[in-house]
Amino acid sequence: MAGTASLHIRAAVAADAGLILRFIRELAVYEKAEASVQTDEAGIAASLFGADATARALVCEVDGQPVGYAVYFYNYSTWLGRKGIYLEDLYVSPDKRGLGAGKALLQHLARQAVAEGCGRFEWSVLDWNTPAIEFYLAAGARPQDEWTVYRLEGEALRAFAG
Amino acid sequence: MAGTASLHIRAAVAADAGLILRFIRELAVYEKAEASVQTDEAGIAASLFGADATARALVCEVDGQPVGYAVYFYNYSTWLGRKGIYLEDLYVSPDKRGLGAGKALLQHLARQAVAEGCGRFEWSVLDWNTPAIEFYLAAGARPQDEWTVYRLEGEALRAFAG
Repeated sequence: MAGTASLHIRAAVAADAGLILRFIRELAVYEKAEASVQTDEAGIAASLFGADATARALVCEVDGQPVGYAVYFYNYSTWLGRKGIYLEDLYVSPDKRGLGAGKALLQHLARQAVAEGCGRFEWSVLDWNTPAIEFYLAAGARPQDEWTVYRLEGEALRAFAG
Repeated sequence: MAGTASLHIRAAVAADAGLILRFIRELAVYEKAEASVQTDEAGIAASLFGADATARALVCEVDGQPVGYAVYFYNYSTWLGRKGIYLEDLYVSPDKRGLGAGKALLQHLARQAVAEGCGRFEWSVLDWNTPAIEFYLAAGARPQDEWTVYRLEGEALRAFAG
């Protein structure tokens, strides 16, 4: 029956590393960047659940089955003198969309941001992803479109580091 | 004598909170957003140096005098399964520019990113800040201009959290 699916969001644990890697790969395919996934289950396990982890993950389940995930970390605003929550990834399996899992994950983190005294809740969107942009605007988010992220990585990062 | 200034970069400590706040305000004036600074020395002390701190700061000194600062935190890439360094603020006092303090702060963090096994070193730039953009491109950084950051904050964040 539509609308009666039982949605549950929980913190991801180390045993979810394989599941999260599968979701990461599916999201990369959607973002037309499949070849960009350069990690494996051990890499995800170490970086998300190791002692040195700087990010955390959530899993959304519908009727006990995982249907999507979110990965987030804490960013910081000097203007506010407060931490914020930055949502790195949000994904729901295509065949499980329309049940509210994406909105539930976003709202879970919005509540966490408020509860933890965060000044902002932020994430990045690909400019061609119109359905996502419409959803985010409707949720009250505003584009920070006067800013562009610059990235140093790989050989360019090592060369500049000297 | 030009070129002989003694540059030194050190981790900021709690006693630097007032200095960092002054730099934050000067940077906000440059970014045409002076009214956006909504914190004070106690807020900076708690958020950068408290037990709950998610960000860190560096101070650059020339001949023993502080001339600029950087604030950064660790972000995360699911594609790489690795943390990265995100530079939130970089600022050098106008009368101390040309001594290499800005490049030294950026290079310090690039070295730290390499040493800590980070996949990326990133920051955001205002689209009208042409001198900064030229410097970053020359350093090998590349704009991630197919992405836009969306932000929920204030009343809109509380309303969406429900």
